[in-house]
Amino acid sequence: MNLRIPGPVPLPDEVLELAGSQMINHRGPQFAEIIDRMTANFKQVLGTKGRAYFLTASGTGSMEAAIVNTLSPGDRVLLISIGSFGNRFGDIAEAYDTEVTRIEFEWGTAADPERVREELRSMPDCAAVIVTHNESSTGVVNPIDAISRVVHDESDALVLVDAVSSAGGVPLPMDDWGLDVVGTASQKSWVAPPGIAMIAMSDRAWEAHKTSKIPKYYFDVDQYEKFLQIGQPPFTPALSTIYALDHSLQAIIEEGIEEVLSRHSARAQQARDGAKRLGLELFPDASVASDTVTAVRIPDDIDGRALVAHARDVYGVELGGGQEKLAGQIFRIGHMGWVEPEHIEESIAAVEKSLADLRNK
Amino acid sequence: MNLRIPGPVPLPDEVLELAGSQMINHRGPQFAEIIDRMTANFKQVLGTKGRAYFLTASGTGSMEAAIVNTLSPGDRVLLISIGSFGNRFGDIAEAYDTEVTRIEFEWGTAADPERVREELRSMPDCAAVIVTHNESSTGVVNPIDAISRVVHDESDALVLVDAVSSAGGVPLPMDDWGLDVVGTASQKSWVAPPGIAMIAMSDRAWEAHKTSKIPKYYFDVDQYEKFLQIGQPPFTPALSTIYALDHSLQAIIEEGIEEVLSRHSARAQQARDGAKRLGLELFPDASVASDTVTAVRIPDDIDGRALVAHARDVYGVELGGGQEKLAGQIFRIGHMGWVEPEHIEESIAAVEKSLADLRNK
Repeated sequence: MNLRIPGPVPLPDEVLELAGSQMINHRGPQFAEIIDRMTANFKQVLGTKGRAYFLTASGTGSMEAAIVNTLSPGDRVLLISIGSFGNRFGDIAEAYDTEVTRIEFEWGTAADPERVREELRSMPDCAAVIVTHNESSTGVVNPIDAISRVVHDESDALVLVDAVSSAGGVPLPMDDWGLDVVGTASQKSWVAPPGIAMIAMSDRAWEAHKTSKIPKYYFDVDQYEKFLQIGQPPFTPALSTIYALDHSLQAIIEEGIEEVLSRHSARAQQARDGAKRLGLELFPDASVASDTVTAVRIPDDIDGRALVAHARDVYGVELGGGQEKLAGQIFRIGHMGWVEPEHIEESIAAVEKSLADLRNK
Repeated sequence: MNLRIPGPVPLPDEVLELAGSQMINHRGPQFAEIIDRMTANFKQVLGTKGRAYFLTASGTGSMEAAIVNTLSPGDRVLLISIGSFGNRFGDIAEAYDTEVTRIEFEWGTAADPERVREELRSMPDCAAVIVTHNESSTGVVNPIDAISRVVHDESDALVLVDAVSSAGGVPLPMDDWGLDVVGTASQKSWVAPPGIAMIAMSDRAWEAHKTSKIPKYYFDVDQYEKFLQIGQPPFTPALSTIYALDHSLQAIIEEGIEEVLSRHSARAQQARDGAKRLGLELFPDASVASDTVTAVRIPDDIDGRALVAHARDVYGVELGGGQEKLAGQIFRIGHMGWVEPEHIEESIAAVEKSLADLRNK
């Protein structure tokens, strides 16, 4: 199966082999070496001198950790949403009793930083702006650098970024862009199985953590920091994922971060060109199209769910379908992590043949 | 390495191979089959007709899920602690602003149900009794059946059980014993890598969940229930662990639950007999000694940390050390999950030789 959903990503053999390695003592010297190396490599990829932690959780755990570690009940939060995952970030903030103001942009478009500026001017007490970097439900990448600049220009708010499906595949120089928390997950551009949520925190976020009053235990970074000092995790981590992630982080450093990013960009261009060649329309405007997942409109005469099922069952290519209000309206090709040109070629061919099959039925 | 810490447990080759399997779509039909089968098998092993969920988290996540899904801030909670993990359960409940009354029993002893009865009589509004089944820090198993009977006799409190290091290896018929939430973790008796926290809930716990006001999102069982109905997880799960756990749950059913439990009991007896043969003293009284981990006192003339390091570095047997106030005082032999008689024999031999080496230094 050519798994082309926007995560979990398919894994090369050497990574799978590591995921199948024997268990070790997570409080022994071997683990200490691994966690130190992973922490350094992750920080290097993100370009941050801040703190970084690995939590055993899905990507959503990294979003929750960003919220519960920096905010207090009643805090005013500005949510910038351009799709399903943006809305989820707001739902998490609301679940923890912060007061969330939502700016929602039309699905398929990116956030407009000037609209954010306007909103912030009426929210002088805004504690945090929360925003998705790459909205995998619509295949759109947000201009996080411009948004972050506006936030810092207009307020003292923290910038908390859901970078679950962007970091590692799309430029995200955390310190240069002034981001306070970046959350991501092992099964995306990082080329590892799901199981590890990764977060990085600026000094400002760490300061905010000290006075944050949202109740927390499992996701409390205090414990992760304390244990990291002795090369341990506070709780038993998903070791199979850790083995794989450690390797893949090293592989990214070895290949070169710039190389990895431009490889992502090239595969994305290939996917967009392929869709165009079939006469299909991108869901977002090409200028904001994501380099980790391509969302394509399904032609009016085609049943979108049938297309995805057909490509999977007949041609062995597993595409992502549309989520929520986009169900049946779009298909998505994931191209984050380990992607060869043939993977994309095969995906486009499967779409082409599936469209023909469905039309000739 | 003969890994004999009380989890992660070593895994047989066929389980490791599964952990190294390729990623699949966690929203596709193959995953739906897996999650349905796992849920049924897990419930069968626990002897429950209640609900069961698999969360991507460490075991501590299952303890947190038990608390946040059933209680509200200000609720009165009775913690019964016999060691380090008992204390942690209380810390979690306090982190979420419940009012915790703690009964602590001496480390190495089990809880006395009559003491619990006494306490409950002065807590008519107790919302939940929280208790560790198997205290792996001291190698003691609590009389959960007797404790649960007392709780139900004296109160309407829920019985929330940390069964992280017991379930699957020690009898725990959840419905027969009237337990409301049971939390456990994949890397213990379940013979899988870490990464999946498992919880089961009674109907009473489910009712309590409906009015529970502790803020929650990632661990909210509402979402797990809703998605389980369509054969999906709410968030991307640790697939490598899922593959292994699915297999191991089936293996437990095939071997026979009674067989698995008596195998655990036999290996524990072998460990206790082995320690005795070396003239060593069990840390707990034999009558309450755990069948998943054996805690042994370190002789006065021996440096406990040196013993554990020596057994590991020279004889390839990784024992657990003592935690917190037991650091250097005890060593622990884990024997949950996949344990052959040779594993125990080799562990005892390593202790014997290490003691001799350290004494002859």
